[in-house]
Amino acid sequence: MAEARQALAAVMPGPGADVELRELPLPNLEPDSALLRIEFSEVCGTDVYLQQGRLAGVPYPIIPGHVSVGLLENIRGTLFDVDGRAFEEGERVTFLDVHRTCHQCWHCLVAKASTRCPHRKVYGITYGIEDGLTGGWSEYIYLKPGVRVLRMGEVASELYMAGGCSLPTALHAVDRAEIRLAESVLVLGSGPVGLSAIGFSVLSGAGRVLCIGAPDARLDAAMAMGADTTLNFMGNDDAARMDWVLSQTGGRGADVTIECTGAPEAVTQAMRYTRDAGRVVVVGQYTDHGETGFNPHLDLNKKHLDVRGCWGSDYSHFYRGLGVLRSERAAKLWSTMTLERFPLSHANDALQAVAEGRVTKALIVPER
Amino acid sequence: MAEARQALAAVMPGPGADVELRELPLPNLEPDSALLRIEFSEVCGTDVYLQQGRLAGVPYPIIPGHVSVGLLENIRGTLFDVDGRAFEEGERVTFLDVHRTCHQCWHCLVAKASTRCPHRKVYGITYGIEDGLTGGWSEYIYLKPGVRVLRMGEVASELYMAGGCSLPTALHAVDRAEIRLAESVLVLGSGPVGLSAIGFSVLSGAGRVLCIGAPDARLDAAMAMGADTTLNFMGNDDAARMDWVLSQTGGRGADVTIECTGAPEAVTQAMRYTRDAGRVVVVGQYTDHGETGFNPHLDLNKKHLDVRGCWGSDYSHFYRGLGVLRSERAAKLWSTMTLERFPLSHANDALQAVAEGRVTKALIVPER
Amino acid sequence: MAEARQALAAVMPGPGADVELRELPLPNLEPDSALLRIEFSEVCGTDVYLQQGRLAGVPYPIIPGHVSVGLLENIRGTLFDVDGRAFEEGERVTFLDVHRTCHQCWHCLVAKASTRCPHRKVYGITYGIEDGLTGGWSEYIYLKPGVRVLRMGEVASELYMAGGCSLPTALHAVDRAEIRLAESVLVLGSGPVGLSAIGFSVLSGAGRVLCIGAPDARLDAAMAMGADTTLNFMGNDDAARMDWVLSQTGGRGADVTIECTGAPEAVTQAMRYTRDAGRVVVVGQYTDHGETGFNPHLDLNKKHLDVRGCWGSDYSHFYRGLGVLRSERAAKLWSTMTLERFPLSHANDALQAVAEGRVTKALIVPER
Amino acid sequence: MAEARQALAAVMPGPGADVELRELPLPNLEPDSALLRIEFSEVCGTDVYLQQGRLAGVPYPIIPGHVSVGLLENIRGTLFDVDGRAFEEGERVTFLDVHRTCHQCWHCLVAKASTRCPHRKVYGITYGIEDGLTGGWSEYIYLKPGVRVLRMGEVASELYMAGGCSLPTALHAVDRAEIRLAESVLVLGSGPVGLSAIGFSVLSGAGRVLCIGAPDARLDAAMAMGADTTLNFMGNDDAARMDWVLSQTGGRGADVTIECTGAPEAVTQAMRYTRDAGRVVVVGQYTDHGETGFNPHLDLNKKHLDVRGCWGSDYSHFYRGLGVLRSERAAKLWSTMTLERFPLSHANDALQAVAEGRVTKALIVPER
Repeated sequence: MAEARQALAAVMPGPGADVELRELPLPNLEPDSALLRIEFSEVCGTDVYLQQGRLAGVPYPIIPGHVSVGLLENIRGTLFDVDGRAFEEGERVTFLDVHRTCHQCWHCLVAKASTRCPHRKVYGITYGIEDGLTGGWSEYIYLKPGVRVLRMGEVASELYMAGGCSLPTALHAVDRAEIRLAESVLVLGSGPVGLSAIGFSVLSGAGRVLCIGAPDARLDAAMAMGADTTLNFMGNDDAARMDWVLSQTGGRGADVTIECTGAPEAVTQAMRYTRDAGRVVVVGQYTDHGETGFNPHLDLNKKHLDVRGCWGSDYSHFYRGLGVLRSERAAKLWSTMTLERFPLSHANDALQAVAEGRVTKALIVPER
Repeated sequence: MAEARQALAAVMPGPGADVELRELPLPNLEPDSALLRIEFSEVCGTDVYLQQGRLAGVPYPIIPGHVSVGLLENIRGTLFDVDGRAFEEGERVTFLDVHRTCHQCWHCLVAKASTRCPHRKVYGITYGIEDGLTGGWSEYIYLKPGVRVLRMGEVASELYMAGGCSLPTALHAVDRAEIRLAESVLVLGSGPVGLSAIGFSVLSGAGRVLCIGAPDARLDAAMAMGADTTLNFMGNDDAARMDWVLSQTGGRGADVTIECTGAPEAVTQAMRYTRDAGRVVVVGQYTDHGETGFNPHLDLNKKHLDVRGCWGSDYSHFYRGLGVLRSERAAKLWSTMTLERFPLSHANDALQAVAEGRVTKALIVPER
Repeated sequence: MAEARQALAAVMPGPGADVELRELPLPNLEPDSALLRIEFSEVCGTDVYLQQGRLAGVPYPIIPGHVSVGLLENIRGTLFDVDGRAFEEGERVTFLDVHRTCHQCWHCLVAKASTRCPHRKVYGITYGIEDGLTGGWSEYIYLKPGVRVLRMGEVASELYMAGGCSLPTALHAVDRAEIRLAESVLVLGSGPVGLSAIGFSVLSGAGRVLCIGAPDARLDAAMAMGADTTLNFMGNDDAARMDWVLSQTGGRGADVTIECTGAPEAVTQAMRYTRDAGRVVVVGQYTDHGETGFNPHLDLNKKHLDVRGCWGSDYSHFYRGLGVLRSERAAKLWSTMTLERFPLSHANDALQAVAEGRVTKALIVPER
Repeated sequence: MAEARQALAAVMPGPGADVELRELPLPNLEPDSALLRIEFSEVCGTDVYLQQGRLAGVPYPIIPGHVSVGLLENIRGTLFDVDGRAFEEGERVTFLDVHRTCHQCWHCLVAKASTRCPHRKVYGITYGIEDGLTGGWSEYIYLKPGVRVLRMGEVASELYMAGGCSLPTALHAVDRAEIRLAESVLVLGSGPVGLSAIGFSVLSGAGRVLCIGAPDARLDAAMAMGADTTLNFMGNDDAARMDWVLSQTGGRGADVTIECTGAPEAVTQAMRYTRDAGRVVVVGQYTDHGETGFNPHLDLNKKHLDVRGCWGSDYSHFYRGLGVLRSERAAKLWSTMTLERFPLSHANDALQAVAEGRVTKALIVPER
């Protein structure tokens, strides 16, 4: 790093505005903090929502980019991993983008629902430039004291970023789904979370993994991630989709449905496409897109259904997500994800490509 | 019984028609079956729906009355309880109103969701007079081979009928709720299922039990069943109810909400009145009252909520429901339920009283 | 079948005696029963115990062979699968070797622990020749009314028999283990149940699957089934094994240990080899080999451990076990099992080969 | 407090030595810490073990007394409760005796087994006088930064101390037991943990609560806590106890057994006294008393049993334990516990009384 005193970063000035490049000062490291030189960050659906101003409580201007990987350039004091081993400068790492989960409040200590802790701050989303270099679309990111860092070890950076934030998100959802061997899993949505949910369902021993999504390129990606068969919802109305699901599941509906779409009506469809006494996990509703209708008698009560919301992820999902990628089989699945790289200067193009669904996974590569 | 060759029964001729008294022949007992002289049967919300023709697949004309208690008048062959002890004539018993759960189909054997077994028949609902004396609004009921019979033992008939069909229904719901000691439970609805859900929640060690219902007489009944406090939803709109729930739960919402109302919109309210990462059990939607709206982002995904439909009941809920009533404390709770008795000849009055919410629990006493 | 009025069967006359061939009469089919022409049956550890007289309540003389596959030669009346589809003569099928689970007793209906139903009878174990052709070491087996039959469909008979009775047994154990993605699983024992437990653990997404067993040929089979690494317990004492487990699991012990050995002391070892707050499933203790010692403070309480006994299997384990084998990936794993075929006339050799661990899986092929 | 610059404390100098009184300096409060004037502390079985030197890693000399209640005399900075409300000087509070659960290690973040966090320190057990006033047998105790404090609110100090450390311990155990309405619960042991386990089982809606313990005075206490019936194990050998359990549970054994004895052989008995497919919670083995024998086939595998170790407690158990005591019904149960008060100067008498089982619950009242 030597003489670099500034970091080039892509900044979202406010809702609706284009991203712009800025030179921002490097932080003075607090005790037990570090400076990370970013190798890759990502552009995900949340970043599109951020630009559209669809999320509440965002402290614009912000540097987007929550899940990132890079090299520990400077460490002040000591950073430990969960096994108590200190990190060294130069190590390739990622980190839990959620900071300041307090472990002191009712949500953390009584409900044990730490992803609902009201004190948590998320890099690239609820931290802004007022908080320093706190987003991955930047040459450097500041790992504040208490940030949980993870060694990449033998996992390639690009393989990990192929999952990116969808990795812990989808892993959490698949945990909640409690898939058992030979069960059928229907994934609604073929964006990054849907694709990772397919991969984890396959690895969990699902008997059949189905996907309803669009466009065709994403359904090809779904097949590459191990789906057994897919349906393009464009040109197939609700009735046609239902018929298709029933035809694929012995007339009963899926044992498990994982909703990863972002469309409110998909949650009701998820209930309908699932068999009696099955499980539905709702993980695609990260932004408020309004209400939808459902029939509590037919869709929930009579079906004896379990419907499980799934919010955020915690350290364990990052830790185990990385763990999964260590297996050769998982590596094969996630390496099928096509990545498109964008330099910082093309961050707006990246956002647009993601918004239009033109790329499966867009990475930000912050080289000058 | 001796010379009785006919049973007087109250028959629902068809949807919308009044109940009428008929003399029906006593059955020729098949091997390992029995004739039960009815002491009490009940009138529940389902019976009102039956008369209104709101349930699909009802083989009118039928004799209503599913949960009943009486004396074993004749046994042909042998009837065993679950411990292998044979029943004797003269014993006071009740029985699982669900017959012919097949234990051979995918629902029974693979999904282990026997309340969704497509072969089950329910006395007083999906059995009609074509099937014989198969409803409790009658002097006699025919316990076909395979009906699961339970000894009343020391449990008084009226105490048991104070719960009636709400006993297994609410017990199943409370099982699904997985209440833990000191948790707050909100029961929506103050009909028989709601009242029994209150009782079981109290017995499960809930820290606070809240009830939103109507009219005031039912809320008094809720207090008598052990609720800590209640709210009449008449005159309190959705926002006022939400404020009330938050004020009663430290601003967080209930740990558990059990929906027992019959109104579709109550399911969405249940989600909103429940705290992050809490549990909602939906047990009040036994008939199709149409759709309602909800916000998948706010009501489900962001809350990390569990919503659990709960359909029907099985033998274990009858067995354990009776077991609960053996405790002095439970007996005190259910003995607070006010019962109104109607002879067979006043079955229409009973139906009307239940439909209008004028009685908490209406019993049919089939004396001539 | 035409003129065949006799079936050749291998009969165990009593404890300690050699198996002998006998000609036994074909049954007169009761309504809704069938005659199955056996293609393959198997020799498992239980059969060795049967010959040694180590199991209580065996009605010698018996025809061994519980899990078998064959062709439906004659059907009287109708046999349905769980979807209500009737079987046809000539279909290739297997069946749930457990018969007469009553679905009427406390174990079945209240505890919902049907594998502990006291009325169940097992083909080849607790049915004897007094009950007819009730073992698979025979040209024909009599599928009594109520036997649950499963279509083989596209699953090859030999692939299925490579698992044999270890398939449902190990699947039940792995269900009980609740393996989550990226967890480490240690399997103790490398007999058929251990090998199938390895396969199911791999398919469940375990991060690492370890096996301690013997002899080396079996450990090669464990590797072929997908184990990541193995240890031969011969020549490695308890301390050496513990060191090895710790070295393989980051010093913490396995997340999950599945005991499949038959040796009482392995249950205590399983507790010790498992990490704090982990899970141990005990499925290898099917016969009484006496007591062993453990330290309740160190091995159980302080470790906050879950230890789960796992007895028998039910229809769902057969159904889902077959379902698993429909996947290409599973087929690859189980097809690595080396099978040795024995005609009926060499049943004693087969028993000896199994008793001495000389074969991984011995099949009985009842051709004349 | 004014001029008090010293606190009188009862100090255990080392294993085997008598407790002695010492004057120790009051702490200089660190930021966000407090000084608590002790109203009551307690003497529990662990304190007896401490004196006997039976626990590893104890930093003698120590001030015993882990669970305590008192008044906040001085606060430096701010202390928040889990709802973010600041404490004020003069408030009556208790605190989680476990300090420094790190929420950063593998146990905390991945296994989510924070009671096994290796960094935790326990007041009165693994903190010694080197760490300051860190035990409750003292006029004052130092609440270091990060200690989790709880308001007593309307719960009387003596009622709370009647439970003392057995309250969170037994609550954790009863959580692990997953008692369902109408199930039978057998509690082994009638010490404070056993008595609290009885109380929580009653409150959880157990159908019958049985206790095997000694001496008779403790069994009277068990009855007062709500047990339905008890057996004195003195004079009833293992076979007689088994007969008694079977006679009390319809011949099947208890649905749930909670072991709270401290005797290794009681863990095996717990398995034997429990019904097939039941649950055993082991919470009484807090010190190493050596090995015992069990039969893995008969006691575990064939029974399809769940055996669950239960170590320590966390904040939620304190929070919910206090919550339980807010109910009138719970208050009635725990108020039956006979308390014996000892001034600091009689701490040795208190220890002896507990060691000999002469008192149900001994409190230390640190008045000069």
